[in-house]
Formats: sequence, C-alpha cells, structure tokens
Amino acid sequence: MEIREFLERDLRPIADDYWDRAEFPVHLIPEVGRLGLLGPVWPETKRFENSALYRGWVALELARVDPGFATFVGVQNGLTMGAIGVGGSPEQRAHWLPPMATGEVIGGFGLTEPLSGSDTARGLRTTAHRTGDTWVINGAKRWIGNATFADVVVIWARDTADDQVKGFLVRGGTPGFTATKIERKQALRSVQNADILLDGVEVSEADRLPNIRSFKDVAIVLRLTRAEVAWQAVGLAVGAYEATVRYALAREQFGKPIASFQLVQDRLARCLGNITAGIAMCVRVSQLLDEDRQGDEHSALAKAFTTRTMRETVALCRETLGGNGIQLDHGVARYMADAEAVFSFEGTYDMNNLIVGRAVTGIAAFV
Amino acid sequence: MEIREFLERDLRPIADDYWDRAEFPVHLIPEVGRLGLLGPVWPETKRFENSALYRGWVALELARVDPGFATFVGVQNGLTMGAIGVGGSPEQRAHWLPPMATGEVIGGFGLTEPLSGSDTARGLRTTAHRTGDTWVINGAKRWIGNATFADVVVIWARDTADDQVKGFLVRGGTPGFTATKIERKQALRSVQNADILLDGVEVSEADRLPNIRSFKDVAIVLRLTRAEVAWQAVGLAVGAYEATVRYALAREQFGKPIASFQLVQDRLARCLGNITAGIAMCVRVSQLLDEDRQGDEHSALAKAFTTRTMRETVALCRETLGGNGIQLDHGVARYMADAEAVFSFEGTYDMNNLIVGRAVTGIAAFV
Amino acid sequence: MEIREFLERDLRPIADDYWDRAEFPVHLIPEVGRLGLLGPVWPETKRFENSALYRGWVALELARVDPGFATFVGVQNGLTMGAIGVGGSPEQRAHWLPPMATGEVIGGFGLTEPLSGSDTARGLRTTAHRTGDTWVINGAKRWIGNATFADVVVIWARDTADDQVKGFLVRGGTPGFTATKIERKQALRSVQNADILLDGVEVSEADRLPNIRSFKDVAIVLRLTRAEVAWQAVGLAVGAYEATVRYALAREQFGKPIASFQLVQDRLARCLGNITAGIAMCVRVSQLLDEDRQGDEHSALAKAFTTRTMRETVALCRETLGGNGIQLDHGVARYMADAEAVFSFEGTYDMNNLIVGRAVTGIAAFV
Amino acid sequence: MEIREFLERDLRPIADDYWDRAEFPVHLIPEVGRLGLLGPVWPETKRFENSALYRGWVALELARVDPGFATFVGVQNGLTMGAIGVGGSPEQRAHWLPPMATGEVIGGFGLTEPLSGSDTARGLRTTAHRTGDTWVINGAKRWIGNATFADVVVIWARDTADDQVKGFLVRGGTPGFTATKIERKQALRSVQNADILLDGVEVSEADRLPNIRSFKDVAIVLRLTRAEVAWQAVGLAVGAYEATVRYALAREQFGKPIASFQLVQDRLARCLGNITAGIAMCVRVSQLLDEDRQGDEHSALAKAFTTRTMRETVALCRETLGGNGIQLDHGVARYMADAEAVFSFEGTYDMNNLIVGRAVTGIAAFV
Repeated sequence: MEIREFLERDLRPIADDYWDRAEFPVHLIPEVGRLGLLGPVWPETKRFENSALYRGWVALELARVDPGFATFVGVQNGLTMGAIGVGGSPEQRAHWLPPMATGEVIGGFGLTEPLSGSDTARGLRTTAHRTGDTWVINGAKRWIGNATFADVVVIWARDTADDQVKGFLVRGGTPGFTATKIERKQALRSVQNADILLDGVEVSEADRLPNIRSFKDVAIVLRLTRAEVAWQAVGLAVGAYEATVRYALAREQFGKPIASFQLVQDRLARCLGNITAGIAMCVRVSQLLDEDRQGDEHSALAKAFTTRTMRETVALCRETLGGNGIQLDHGVARYMADAEAVFSFEGTYDMNNLIVGRAVTGIAAFV
Repeated sequence: MEIREFLERDLRPIADDYWDRAEFPVHLIPEVGRLGLLGPVWPETKRFENSALYRGWVALELARVDPGFATFVGVQNGLTMGAIGVGGSPEQRAHWLPPMATGEVIGGFGLTEPLSGSDTARGLRTTAHRTGDTWVINGAKRWIGNATFADVVVIWARDTADDQVKGFLVRGGTPGFTATKIERKQALRSVQNADILLDGVEVSEADRLPNIRSFKDVAIVLRLTRAEVAWQAVGLAVGAYEATVRYALAREQFGKPIASFQLVQDRLARCLGNITAGIAMCVRVSQLLDEDRQGDEHSALAKAFTTRTMRETVALCRETLGGNGIQLDHGVARYMADAEAVFSFEGTYDMNNLIVGRAVTGIAAFV
Repeated sequence: MEIREFLERDLRPIADDYWDRAEFPVHLIPEVGRLGLLGPVWPETKRFENSALYRGWVALELARVDPGFATFVGVQNGLTMGAIGVGGSPEQRAHWLPPMATGEVIGGFGLTEPLSGSDTARGLRTTAHRTGDTWVINGAKRWIGNATFADVVVIWARDTADDQVKGFLVRGGTPGFTATKIERKQALRSVQNADILLDGVEVSEADRLPNIRSFKDVAIVLRLTRAEVAWQAVGLAVGAYEATVRYALAREQFGKPIASFQLVQDRLARCLGNITAGIAMCVRVSQLLDEDRQGDEHSALAKAFTTRTMRETVALCRETLGGNGIQLDHGVARYMADAEAVFSFEGTYDMNNLIVGRAVTGIAAFV
Repeated sequence: MEIREFLERDLRPIADDYWDRAEFPVHLIPEVGRLGLLGPVWPETKRFENSALYRGWVALELARVDPGFATFVGVQNGLTMGAIGVGGSPEQRAHWLPPMATGEVIGGFGLTEPLSGSDTARGLRTTAHRTGDTWVINGAKRWIGNATFADVVVIWARDTADDQVKGFLVRGGTPGFTATKIERKQALRSVQNADILLDGVEVSEADRLPNIRSFKDVAIVLRLTRAEVAWQAVGLAVGAYEATVRYALAREQFGKPIASFQLVQDRLARCLGNITAGIAMCVRVSQLLDEDRQGDEHSALAKAFTTRTMRETVALCRETLGGNGIQLDHGVARYMADAEAVFSFEGTYDMNNLIVGRAVTGIAAFV
C-alpha cells in the first residue's frame, strides 16, 4: 500500500528524532496531501470514494508508525477541515478546503480552554461580541494542536448576545491573537500544541461559520473524529507490540531468546488479544458510521475501550524490554509516552465512560 | 427469534433452581432438538443452511441465559457429534447423528483425565489394546460432561500397538465402565460431570472411529468447538451485565438509583466495552471459520481474550450488587460462579495464551 | 498456639461440608468460648490482657481456615458484644456479656435493611415508638448474621420522637419478631443470615441500650470491628494461597510439577506480595487502635486495600488449579466464593474508598 | 527534618528542569554529604547510629521529591560504597569511603552489560586476566549510573583463571576505559547512565576488592540495596500522589473541584491504599535487615510489590490530571516516566517475582 510505504520510508526513520526534539516534520505535509489523507470525506477534496472503515485503517497505520503524526492529520483533516466542512458556507468550503487538502494551508481547532477540559460545553468562557459586521473575540485556549504554525485556527466562542457557541476562522497573525508553544510535554512531543490568547481579536462576519448555531453543531464535528481516535489508539498499540515481538526474538538471556519465556509469551498474547479485539470493535463502529447509525455512545465506547487496552498493552510491551525499554532507540518508549495523550484527549477515559453510562442508564453522572 | 423465546420462557425461570440443586433440566432436551441446535453443521442433521457466525450467536444466546445449558449443548453438539462427524464412518454417522440431533441419544466426550488437563495430548494415559476385533480399554477420565446419563461416550485412548490416540464409542452400561457424578462443584452446577473408570471395557472394532488416526485428528474436533466457547464467554458476560443494569436502575441508595453514581456507570461502561469488543472479535473468528481460514491460534486468542474479559466483567457486575450479589436470586451470582469453569475448560487461559505465544514467536513455552 | 490447634483439628476437616450444606457447626461454639475468643476486649469477659494486634491475628487465623466461622465470631464478639459493651448499662453488660463469652447466649446485630445497605445511616427506616416504658418496633432487617438461632438481636431503630437511631435488645421469640433464613447464598454459606421482620415488636425501656444516642454511637461499634474484617480478608487470602502452593507442588503436567512453570510462580509471588503487604498494613492499623489513634479512614483504607487484593489473590489461586479449582475438595473454591461476601460487607469496597476519599479531600462524594 | 528541608528548598524547585535537560545537579552533592546520606552504614563514614528503617525512610523522602536524585544516592552510597564496604580491604575502605561520604569522590557500579540484564550472574562476559600484579580487563558495561563523571567505577569481571566474578576499582581516565552517556532516556533523565567500553584496561592488584571471591559476594551488596529500592518506589508514588491531591482540589470542572467526583476520589483512595501498604511492608523488611534476618526473597518480594503498585499508582495519578498530566509542570508526568526505570532496575519485576517463586516452591523457573 502506497501509504504504508511512505510511512516506513519517510516517517519511521525520523519519528524518534523529531519526537525527541519536540519538532514536527513539516516537510512531509505535502506528501500527506498527495496521498489523499487530508479531506477524504468532503466533495471538494476527496480523491476517490472511501468509507469510514478505510479512513479508520489509515488512522491506525499512521499511529502505528507515529501517533504524533497521526494527531497532526487528525487536527488538520478531522477537526479543522471537519469544522469547515460541517459548519462552513459553500464559499468558505471552496476557499479553505482545497488548500488544506494539499497541505498548503495548515489549520488548528481551538476548543479546549485553560479552565475547561472535560467541561468543554458549559465551561467555555471565550466570548465573541458582535458590532456591525465585526466580532470581537476575547479569551484563552489551551492545547491547540498545530496552532504555533497554523494559517487558520477555528476558534469556538460564546456569543455574548445569545449565549450560544459559534465558530470563527481566525487567521494566524491577526492582531490580538498569540499562540505560545507548550513546552516540556512528555507525550506526542512532535505535536505543536499552543496556549492561545485572544485579546480583542477582530473577525469579520464573513469568517464566522454560518452553520454552527450552538454547541450541538460542534458535537457533530467531534463525533466524526472520535472514532478515528479509537483507531489511532489501536494503531499505537500495534506499533509498540510489533517492536516488542522483534525485541523479544532478538534479545537473549539465560542462553535463549526471551521470547521463549512463558511470562513474555503471556504478555505478547495478552497484547495481541487487546489489539485484535480493538480492531474488530473499530471495524464495527466505522461500519455504523458508514451506515449513518453511529451515535456518540458508540464512538465513546470504542474510544474508552481501545485507549484502556492500549494503555495496558504499551505497559506490557515496555516492561518486556527491561531497562532498554526506557530509551527511545528500542522502539517502544515513545509509544508508551504518547499513549497518555491519546488516553486523555478528545474526551478523557472517564468522560467517554460516563457518556456510555448515560446512554445505558438514561442518567448523566458528570454534572 | 424462536430460540430466544424458548430460552426466556422455558429455561430462564428454572435455571437458578436446577443450578442450585446441581441437576440438569433433561426435559428441555427434545425442544433443543426441535430448534435445530444439535447437529446444525452435519449434512445428516442440519435443518437449514447456517454459518459459523450463526452458530456462534446461538452459543452466546444460550450462555446469556444459562452457561450450564450452553455447556450441555456444547458437549452434545460440538464435542460428541463433532467427534463422530469428523472421525466416524458413514455408517456410524448415520447411526448416531440423527438420534443425537433429536436428543433421543445423549453423548459425552471423554478426553480429560485425572492426571492430564492441559497436557492432554502427551499426558493421555488411558490405553486400548486390540485382540482380534475387540479392543480392551483401561484407564480413567475426569470432568466428562453429560456422562452420568449419556447413552454413549467417546473415549480417547492410546493404542498400545502404535502409541497413537484413537477414539471409541463406549455405550453407557458397558461392563467395566463406571461414571460417578462429581459432587460439590461451584461452577456450572447443572452440568453433570463425571469421573469415569474404564476397567477392562471391551469395545468392538466397529465402534472405533476410523478417521481418527492420532491426536491431530482430535485437535480438529477441538478447533471446531473452541471458538464457540469464546462466544459462550461473551454470552455469559452479557447475562451478568443485563441483570446488573436492571438492578442498578431499580436499587436506590442515598435517595437515588445507584445507576446514577459515577462508580456504577464506570463499571457498566467498562463491562459493555468488554462485551462489545468480545462480540466483534468472535464475529471475525467465525467469519474466518466460514472462510475456512481459522487456525488454532485464532480460536485460542478469542477464547483467552473473551474469558479474561468475561472474568473481569462478572466481578464488576457482582460487586455492583453489593450483598445482594452473593445470592442466586438477583441474577448475577450464578454467572460469576460459572465463569470460573468457562475460564478453565477447553484450554485454560494459560494454555490458550501459550498457543498464541507459540504462533507469534515460533517457540513452544509449555513443555 | 492453642487456637491454631483447635482450628486445624476441629474446624478445618468439617469446614467444606458445613459450607456445602449451608449449616453452621454450632457444636464448636463452646470451645471458641473456652479459647477466649468471645469478649476479649471487655473487662467482664476478657481472660487475659490482649491488644488489638492480638485480636487481629486471631481474626486472620480464623479466616485462614474458615471465613464463615470467622464471620460468626465477628458477629457474636465484635458487633453484638461490641454494641452491648459500648452502648449497654452496667446491668446490661453484666447480664449479657458473660454468657455470650461462653457461647451460651448467641447474639445478632440488626442494622442493614432491605432498602438500606451502604446508606445505612440516613436510610434506616425501622422505627421505635415509645409509650410509657414500652417501645414498639416496626420494620425489617436483612442479612443479619446468626439471627436464625440467636437468643438476642440488637435492633437499631429510629426513635419516632427525636428521629435518632437507638439500640434495642430483642430476644428471639418475642411476638412480632420473625427471622427467616436467607437461602441460596453463594458466599459464607455456613453463616446463617436472616431476613428479619419486626411487626409491632414490644421492647421494654430496660432493654434499650442507654449509651446509644444517635448513629454516631453505632459508628463507634463499627469502627472497632472494621479493622478486624481487614484482618479476615488477609486470612482468607492466606488460606487460598496455602492450598494453592500445596496443589502446585503436587500437581504435575508436562512431566513436572506445575509449580515449576513461570506463570504459576509469578502468580504465587503476586499473591504473597498482596498478603504480606496486607498483614503489614493491618499490623499498623491495629497498633493505631492500641494507641487510641485509629480513625474511620484508617480502618476503611485497610478494609478497602485488603479486600481488593484478597479478591485478586483468590482469583489467581483458583485459576492455578484449573478445572479442579471449581470443586470444593481442592481447598480453594470455598475461599474464592467467600471473598465476595467479605468484599461487600461492613462497608462495600466503594463505600470504604469514598470514606477515605472524604478524609483526603474534605468532600463527601457519596451523597 | 533537616533532610526534608533541603529537599524542598534546594532540590524540588529545580528537579523538573534538570530532568528535562537530562543533567544532574552536581552542585547539590556536597550538601548531601553534609547531611550524612552517603555512607551512613559504614564505621568509617557514619555520622550517627542509624537503622535500615531510618535509611529506608530517607530513600523514600529522596524519591518523593526526585527519584533521579534518589538513584544517584543509591548508586554512590548503596552500590559503590557498598561494594567497597563489603569487598574492600581496610586500606581501600580508608582510602575511598571518607571522600565518597563527602561527595568529593564520585563512584559508579559496573555490573550490567549490553548482553546481560536479568542474567547478570551467568551472563557476565567482561573478563579480567591477571599477569603478575596487573589485571587486564576487557568487555562492556551498560546503564552504569554516574559513570560519565565518576572518579571511580567498580567493574565486575570474570577472572579468566578461575571463572569467578571479581571486583576492580577502575579510575576514570584510565587508558582503555570509555564511558559514553546514554542519550534519549525517557525515565530518570537526570541520572547520568553510561555505556562503558573496557578495552585492555589495566588495573593493579591493589585495586582489586579482596573480599569478593565470587558472584555470591556481589549478591551481598545487591541485597543491601534492593530493599532501599522498594522504599524508593513507594516514595516515588507518594510524590505523584501528593501532587495529584493538590491538583484535584484546585482544578474545577462542571463548577466544582474535580476532587469532589467519585471517580477521582476512588483513584486517590486506591493510590493511598497502595502507598500505605507499601510503606508498612518496607518497614517490616527493614526491620528484618536490622534484625539480620533479611533474605533475598524478602527484598525481592518488597521490590516486586512496591514497584507493581507504584506503577498502578502513577498511572492513576496521571490520568487524574487529564491533558495537564502530560506536561512536566503539573508535577506528575516526571514520576510516571521515572517509574518505568525503577520498575526495571535492580531486578526486573519478573526476576524479583521468580526469586520469590523459587523461595516458595524450591524450584528455579528462570533458567
């Protein structure tokens, strides 16, 4: 497969280095565009017919080599192009989606705030105040991926007039907009997350997403991407598992490969069980999306299950490498570190479980 | 579905009682026959075209109501009719399969021995010695399901001439054959397991299964059934989960249903994740069987994964019921007890993991 | 040690049988009295100076052989004599404690109700209405240990006058008092738990415990006993562990003791870690009690930790026995079954954790 | 306590920075010497009478603030001074121990090799060949802490004459001795581990440790330090736990501190149970050492238990911080990362469990 070839040839050899230096391999973005990974879901940008199942597998393959790279694609393609695809006018879509699909334009998605993570709907404090055809946005955002070098960031803000959350296309460099790189991350280090300050940022009404009327419309965007995060979680686990099998077959102790020890084989089998079940579950969730029957609780269940088992899997893998498992070079340490971000973003484990719990019981337990 | 109706109407109301008394509801066997659950895979007995996927779902539905009943069917249909279907001559198949499909003839499968559980292939000590057209069988078997009331038990014995394992149809009541019910079981209590003594039992060459030439042929029978045990494990978990959701919605503490507490919802969501992933995995394994591509390691992986998560699920369910969870009447205690048998039979968790480990590494770690 | 000798000689050989028949070995009660296990904490009944640490070890030793027997002692000695010791007048203490210490009088402790388990304080619905020197008690109790054959049951009821919980000594056979044995239990089967109905039961003011003024005084009794349940949990795990080591050394598969396999040794070591840590923690909690510094959160933490690790330990033990682990006769099945009751009684795992959580954060999360 | 004050004032504020830069705060070493943390066990260097229990608590306090710093002390004080204290002549002790106690001389301990981790005894490949009074050492070592800036490294090598392992004091800068810093570590980043090459390094007989006659004598050194690693593991967990409690009380979501949510309190209580049990167990193991009754299996059990529960604890802590948990600044990410090294060094989890398993069963399962 062409994508796999690209990943093995161009990305894998440099993934640890970029991670270590906390830099993103921006030179690979055009190639990602050429491969059709950006915008496969929108008429303006898709290269060929494809399904949610196909897109899920792609997310797995990306994360299998580099979860940070998968996250970049998730932000550009899933969240940002998703926001424009769902919420944008035909003109906005025509303007933004094609250059984002080639990677000429980079986007970010500004939802999370310093004071609101899980409580993103009610807790959103950034405001937008309209005067004539100009909106003035004030507030702060946190953890916004790609935002240090993005050409455009979708900023979600609460309209002071009707208290509803609306979406605005804020271009990098707009006065009052500051994006500061978050340093000292221990997971997904190649992803460039930013703290964003919005201090009287002026945005024209033409840059508001007209089809976003309330947080419910934001939730549509999130629903489209959450299942892909489940796929990413499985891909991450696959990456760690494959490196561990290689190590266990090569490493000898007590005169034989450690792969011959019961305790090691038990771990490998346990990991493979987690992975296989996770893939099977993701396949079904993507099928539901393709059948237009996927609800929030389906992707929440898949994200919770695959991230829980991913976390177990990477820990089993890392310990199999003993001391060598704490060093980047043996191919497992990075996955274990990255797993913590995947476990917590796009809905923490707790939040996803409680979304499922609400669907099962009819009672919300998180407020 | 007709089967579900039968299970809810005829089996569920009596399942706890039979379990408690350690008796089997033999009066339901003819109905099971009428529903086509015995012998759906053999030309002599199948009522309609069906797939491994269909048969897997049936196993899930049975175990969802009563894992003991599912085990009876597994022994009659999967193991015993399987042994005759795989190893029998056309005459043997014609003689035995049809009355077993109606439930008029009950069968057992005599493989495990007092001294060999996991080590069933090499450790098999029961012997068969041929003189003319008569075989004399000596040895002992343990845990043989249905054997206290079976009309015929397939006995696996090692031919003293060539040291290979062969199969014999031993009729109940044959001189030298004694089946003693195993008492004081704490799991699958309705299943009638027996300790069998074979003291100079004479079997005619006509009752030897001609297509069983070595343990490899026994393994074919086991492969056909192990994936169904994975389905049973999921079904068992579903049974416990459904009872727990009902309880959590009905039981109030601190002035509200316990279903409204975060700790309870988290458990329910975790259980549902286990179950959903388990079903998705079993679907795939059955598809592989339908495509004739299922190997030992596939069903071993599925059995290990689904029984591990089943065990976690029933424990999460039981604790949700607090003190009421230790009593049969609230619908969860029986599943938790039964889970221990399902976790250990048809290959313990360890053995299945090590079969997977061998497939992954190319090294056997259990000898 | 004399106690250990009694347990090994008189109790261990019959423990499984009584459990299986759901009967209690009442003939052993006088001997328990002679050994000083009933009432070691009260001046009226103690035979020699002893410490909480000593009493904790005794609880461990009892549960190591039979958790059901340990529970009987806990009800008679800890809860019932505790209630009279803490709440009784000098006359009540003198009347009841000595014959309870010899086992001539058997007591029960009626707190839990059908509708209140974790919510025992606020949710208590049984009422006591005073007219002159007579109280009339109405309500229901559930899970009351020893109550089917108890001479006296301490009934906790809410005074209709001041809404406070008070304690009453209700003699077996009092009109309106009915105790029905709870059947079909799957844990602690030898313990005789009852559903109690109180239908206009009349109790004299002289049989009210005068030093119980509110639920806070009941909590004092519970605090004294909860740490002993933590010891019981460890003892139960020790019992399962010891039987498992014996089995693993005796059972051979693949030509050697299963104790020689890595997967088995790993389990044994994990169990021993749980047990050793549990004992060490219980020692400290009992020292705190001896120093009069033990708070609710200390015993709650110990109970939560030791019951969580007990549950893990017995499951690891049981699976080590494979199929033989589901039968009473191999010495592990009973412990695994009993563990579920110990996990849930005297404060479920959740409640104990939330009591700790409240102490840590200053916020109650269970209301 | 003076030590705690030093740690809070001088170490805590800089710990994350040094970790992030993978540098060690060498300027603090003299203060550590002044506080008596180096060499408290040897007559030549101890400042006051102290016990294993005291030294264990110190290890906990160090790791609570910075597991990397605790590891430096463990290498200098426990392993290197331990090797000289156990194996050295009076002259060697007098020469080396006092300046190591002040921190003027820094030591390393060269045991692990590229090809031998768990299999350190049999697998040791570095050789020492004696000619006259000169030994020539060839081989390689890996993961040697402090070795990039150590003045002296104890090198363990196999005498080509008698095949026994012996110990040599190799000074930094000796021709043929190269120590290369191991880069890209993801745990204990402030610890300076080195890959060491020994290419014909000449060591005088006067620099051989005369009391080390075989690997058994090396094992004495390890036994003295392994229990302190168990203390470190608990200390690490305490550090993560305390930061998490602070965060949970300060962070608000859904209008209240997240510390008020059941799922958060449950995690905190579970962590506190792990920590408290771990401390209690370590206290007992240190008491055994003070009573001269500690065996390999005691410290192995403690190391296995405390590192297993440490790993669980830091994961529960990190997830409580959500996204903020992946950044160094919130005080938990560093502990989670460091835990992986502590889990694997001085005997991996598996090896320690199998050492316990051997003590329990009498059978070694790791060869």
